[in-house]
Amino acid sequence: MKLKYNIVLVLVFIGCLTSVKLNAQEHPSLILTKSGVQKIRQELGNVPLFDKSLALVKAEVDAEIELGIETPIPKDYSGGYTHERHKRNFLMLQKAGVLFQILQDEKYAVYVRDMLFQYEKMYKGLPAHPQTRSYARGKLFWQCLNDSNWLVYVSQAYDCVYDWLSKKERKKLEKNLFRPFADYISVDNPQFFNRVHNHSTWGNAAVGMIGLVMNDEELIERALYGIKDDGLEVGAKDNDGGFIKTEGQKAGFLANIDEPFSPDGYYTEGPYYQRYAMYPFLVFAEALENVKPDLKIFEFKEGVLLKSVSALLNLTDANGDFFPLNDGQKGMSYYSRELVTAVDVAYYYGGLNPQLLSIVQKQDRVLLDDSGLSAAVAIRDQKAKPFQKKSINLSDGPNGKQGGVGVLRYGNEDLTLVFKYAAQGSSHGHYDKLSYSLYEKGTEIIQDYGLARFVNIEQKGGGNYLKENKTWAKQTIAHNTITQNQQSHFKGKYEIGSQHHSDLFFYDDSHQNIQIVSSKETNAYSNTLLHRTMAIIKVPSLAKPFVLDLMKVSSKEQNQYDLPVYFKGQIISTNFIYSLPQVLNPLGEENGYQHLWLEGKGASKEAISKVSFLNKNNFYTITSTVQANDELLFTRIGANDSEFNLRRDAGFMIRRNNESNTVFASIIEPHGSYSYVSEFSVDSKSHIENLEVVYDSDDYTAVTFKTTEGVVDVLIIANNTSDKTKQHTLKIKDKEFNWKGAYHYQQTK
Amino acid sequence: MKLKYNIVLVLVFIGCLTSVKLNAQEHPSLILTKSGVQKIRQELGNVPLFDKSLALVKAEVDAEIELGIETPIPKDYSGGYTHERHKRNFLMLQKAGVLFQILQDEKYAVYVRDMLFQYEKMYKGLPAHPQTRSYARGKLFWQCLNDSNWLVYVSQAYDCVYDWLSKKERKKLEKNLFRPFADYISVDNPQFFNRVHNHSTWGNAAVGMIGLVMNDEELIERALYGIKDDGLEVGAKDNDGGFIKTEGQKAGFLANIDEPFSPDGYYTEGPYYQRYAMYPFLVFAEALENVKPDLKIFEFKEGVLLKSVSALLNLTDANGDFFPLNDGQKGMSYYSRELVTAVDVAYYYGGLNPQLLSIVQKQDRVLLDDSGLSAAVAIRDQKAKPFQKKSINLSDGPNGKQGGVGVLRYGNEDLTLVFKYAAQGSSHGHYDKLSYSLYEKGTEIIQDYGLARFVNIEQKGGGNYLKENKTWAKQTIAHNTITQNQQSHFKGKYEIGSQHHSDLFFYDDSHQNIQIVSSKETNAYSNTLLHRTMAIIKVPSLAKPFVLDLMKVSSKEQNQYDLPVYFKGQIISTNFIYSLPQVLNPLGEENGYQHLWLEGKGASKEAISKVSFLNKNNFYTITSTVQANDELLFTRIGANDSEFNLRRDAGFMIRRNNESNTVFASIIEPHGSYSYVSEFSVDSKSHIENLEVVYDSDDYTAVTFKTTEGVVDVLIIANNTSDKTKQHTLKIKDKEFNWKGAYHYQQTK
Repeated sequence: MKLKYNIVLVLVFIGCLTSVKLNAQEHPSLILTKSGVQKIRQELGNVPLFDKSLALVKAEVDAEIELGIETPIPKDYSGGYTHERHKRNFLMLQKAGVLFQILQDEKYAVYVRDMLFQYEKMYKGLPAHPQTRSYARGKLFWQCLNDSNWLVYVSQAYDCVYDWLSKKERKKLEKNLFRPFADYISVDNPQFFNRVHNHSTWGNAAVGMIGLVMNDEELIERALYGIKDDGLEVGAKDNDGGFIKTEGQKAGFLANIDEPFSPDGYYTEGPYYQRYAMYPFLVFAEALENVKPDLKIFEFKEGVLLKSVSALLNLTDANGDFFPLNDGQKGMSYYSRELVTAVDVAYYYGGLNPQLLSIVQKQDRVLLDDSGLSAAVAIRDQKAKPFQKKSINLSDGPNGKQGGVGVLRYGNEDLTLVFKYAAQGSSHGHYDKLSYSLYEKGTEIIQDYGLARFVNIEQKGGGNYLKENKTWAKQTIAHNTITQNQQSHFKGKYEIGSQHHSDLFFYDDSHQNIQIVSSKETNAYSNTLLHRTMAIIKVPSLAKPFVLDLMKVSSKEQNQYDLPVYFKGQIISTNFIYSLPQVLNPLGEENGYQHLWLEGKGASKEAISKVSFLNKNNFYTITSTVQANDELLFTRIGANDSEFNLRRDAGFMIRRNNESNTVFASIIEPHGSYSYVSEFSVDSKSHIENLEVVYDSDDYTAVTFKTTEGVVDVLIIANNTSDKTKQHTLKIKDKEFNWKGAYHYQQTK
Repeated sequence: MKLKYNIVLVLVFIGCLTSVKLNAQEHPSLILTKSGVQKIRQELGNVPLFDKSLALVKAEVDAEIELGIETPIPKDYSGGYTHERHKRNFLMLQKAGVLFQILQDEKYAVYVRDMLFQYEKMYKGLPAHPQTRSYARGKLFWQCLNDSNWLVYVSQAYDCVYDWLSKKERKKLEKNLFRPFADYISVDNPQFFNRVHNHSTWGNAAVGMIGLVMNDEELIERALYGIKDDGLEVGAKDNDGGFIKTEGQKAGFLANIDEPFSPDGYYTEGPYYQRYAMYPFLVFAEALENVKPDLKIFEFKEGVLLKSVSALLNLTDANGDFFPLNDGQKGMSYYSRELVTAVDVAYYYGGLNPQLLSIVQKQDRVLLDDSGLSAAVAIRDQKAKPFQKKSINLSDGPNGKQGGVGVLRYGNEDLTLVFKYAAQGSSHGHYDKLSYSLYEKGTEIIQDYGLARFVNIEQKGGGNYLKENKTWAKQTIAHNTITQNQQSHFKGKYEIGSQHHSDLFFYDDSHQNIQIVSSKETNAYSNTLLHRTMAIIKVPSLAKPFVLDLMKVSSKEQNQYDLPVYFKGQIISTNFIYSLPQVLNPLGEENGYQHLWLEGKGASKEAISKVSFLNKNNFYTITSTVQANDELLFTRIGANDSEFNLRRDAGFMIRRNNESNTVFASIIEPHGSYSYVSEFSVDSKSHIENLEVVYDSDDYTAVTFKTTEGVVDVLIIANNTSDKTKQHTLKIKDKEFNWKGAYHYQQTK
């Protein structure tokens, strides 16, 4: 059904393309427009944030002009000189073009022209980049991806000086530089251009944007719908291990919107790559909206492009940093230039949502175009409202049927739980089914490792993915979820993982005292069902909310189950005895275990284990139900890390041997505080006195927990149906419980 | 000479004591004064910072009054309930007393009275505290120290309600509570009271302050001059291993100012303990100034108390955190309540230095007394000026002749080098002769470990010193200095260490392009001379300044020398091959080595080793001269750490075997930056192309370094004389150098 609908849409689009008279002769028309520029010029000096942004850009470009133009022969990987220089060049070209339009100072046009002709002169005879690691080498850069970055920015610069250049100059540039450039990253490299992947999105946008400036229908059509006969083999892979072509795969910009985005705007590769792809998505969309408004690109797939901006903003912690799902470098945030574009464009084209303005205020700069002006004017006029991050469940998959990510938030981001039950996430996905991470305000409490890479730091493997990304960061044991028999989910194989996804069982954020999400994973291990339910619970007697985690494992065989939790902080106390080895050995030999040192080992004599730690100014305790034979392991990342590529972070792991069906129940409890200035230690001990799995069957799992205030609460999960209307009755220890729906939480007041 | 002078001063003091008519009948007179209160009341509502501070205190005390009074039977160590409750009580009593005076609301007086009588009732029959770890157990707390804290605060509260209480009430309190309390912490515990130690300072102040309020001459004299016949044995030690009594030791408050403070105001235990002792020093001084102005306490020892505040502020990093010299918990800063007192008092009694006001502004609160009012009024009147931290050399020892601490700063704290060549620092000292730490802005680059303790966190050894403080934190190998033959300085023995100190060779911060300090240590190892020279150098061709480190070791025997550097950050690259062990072993068995895992081992084929690392957003490279046989070791703290008491921090160590005389030369070079948001990596590689010890004899040591810009600079140290007027001539590789003074730096422009 969905497929049919898309085909119809595509046909409508083709209709538009042929029927609408292109007015691309007017320049600028791509991002800046003639009328927009007029408006901007009228407002100069009256809109503080716009003026400030303009002054910053001007200062930057003026300094670059002062330094002179350099277009070195391409040589380096990212982080190296030629890479960084060409990258800086395209950023400067785009900005100089804008300055020319807004300030109407010819020196900027001269700068753009002169640099373009240096590129024109060099490009003609340029071979593929000498570094060979990429499956699709560029010419200016080591991969077509970066060449596409270049063209996305430079097409904007060209648009800005188009009218100022002579016809002859334009012809020379188009013939020797832009057209061959666009062909090289598309028809010459279909394995790059014709995929559904963030790489291709950049390629599509690059080709489409220069096509719009040049009024080149062929390029525009190629950008939107891909190359018809790409000659690619199904099953081929790129250098990151991602599929280049799968059966029935569509291509082009519209396919790249349609497939990786769920209807909720979640991008299957995760927020780090969504951020990266956001720029070409939105800037090309903006260009299409300006040049081809009848396409109604922002309404495509029920407005998913604008929804995706909202999704992305909701995938940040209290500091604005993206959750590092899949391959994501920590520290990337909504302060990035891509998000400045995204938020301004979403504000302007997405109904002027005043909450977005508070993000713009934090970013403290705007785009130098209609959208940036509009946001800056609204901020000047005090229209900004705080951006409210709430709990949100984002589906994954083109139709929203391939699992998702649940983000539970309590209060003003006092506690944020990120629960991942998504699809594989293409080649940047990790084998981390039903994993999670936890934040208090902007501080990581239970961390997701992120990627093993130092983006653009040349000394670290050319700034590219390090081998530890595969041997550690992607492996299941690197995540806060179950590893069975020391084997990663889907055997760590992308071919298998990419065919599956977890399924939402239920999600409910409608109650003040419990917000809860539950999901099942049936394919990570054959014969084993993983069913995890996680909740943020607030009980009246405790000052802070806590997380309750129920991981139910059902198997037909006896297995070893490892459930690690990568806490951040220093151990303050445990309730069990452990011993520290005199010599550290790796915990295993493969699947990520080879990177873990075993730092300590213990067992609990009680039915619960407790681990308390201090992170910055706050205390936390993990209380878990344990069995007498459970091994309680302290681990440290860093074994077999021959180049210090990994952080030496701590972990605590419960290992349960020879079990088929079992439940791991835990409470992760923030409590108290410590001040290094007053040296006051407040409430440094856990308030969870007991935690017990009081019932577990195929049909129901029930847990009780007791606080030091003596209150006992119970949570029951109906394992087999999430039907909201279904009535349940269950007797536990002579007490009968009756309720309706997938779960029952009974809070004792 | 100095001693004589002090005796004369003491005699003058005694003269004052007997001749000045005590006017302690007027109350309050201690910190608040009758006229001061009048002035404060007149200004209420007109001085924003004072009003704000008052409102905060009022809100806090009101909330406590609401909760009711609790004075539990003493039971716990620090961090435990009874400890924290009694601590909170004395803080509240002092504040409630002040509120009563300023607001003239009787409820505060009632609160003070009622709580005092609860204490009165309990104290009479109270035995020594049940916890036995201290060499001087208190009654309310596990050590007399905390009991003294209590009395220092509570005597202020008593002063505030003195006139409001009936004579009978006062008599009862003094007879059953205050006088026995004062006697208990003094004559009953001379081993606590009669020392030169921060403990005794608290004891002296406590006894003196309650003496001033009660107009009790005996207590005042005891406070100022100590107990005459204390019956203590010379050589006895406390539970921290510090001497209680040494030969000829004086006692009392004046001795506690005279001995531990150098004439520059450096406190021999280091800034963390100076901060702790600052409150009794200044608050008792303020009381003496108010009640006995003729004593001129702020002029004692040439105004050392006020100088010490300036010294303390200069011993902070760009965030205001104290350098963790000796036993110091990181994170303690000039935002602490003790420093609020110190800075307000120093402002008021120390000549109204407007630079102090900028610190007060950062603290954002003032004392509720004359000094706080005066600072707040000045801030309201916009008199604040930025506090300028510059390079400073602080002598150690009562006469300033026992080494010291040199702090070299470049720019606006862009780079701060802390070079320690001080005396032992009493029982809180570390065996770290000629060690250093390095900061860029407020970020630690080369760290000093600090202490192994979680102050007031009960679960960690009662919040007291952990055994790792002795086995790791105090040991030489835990510091950035030379360990010879895997043995700590002075064999790690306090008895030996406390007899010695390093000597300043020269200090010169007068040049823009080089600031330099040099010191010799002859006693850390018998037969071995350590001579270290450290400089911050700024060469025109490099954007950032760097540190040059020359550690010259001269011995009559062949030894093994280990020189570690505890860098903070993640390794980015090295210029040498190293191997990582499959299994981690401790580096040694004792003297701190047992706590280091050996994480990697290499050797350099070149004459220099290079280690680059990334810390937050900046790159750093350590370039060192190495010999072919040098072992280059990567270490990680945490071996034999059975309770996770230590941080898992990294170290890099150069091990040189079988050498007698040798020089370790290094450059620690900050360079470039990395942004996790733009992912731009700028200037990530070292600019030091070569570093070479080109000359080394008993008389001279010379080093050259070459930057990637091709410039070669030379630094020569005259090892045997620091005479500034002495002319030197030296030929190095056919080039003759002529200069005057202890060093010669030739910078090539």
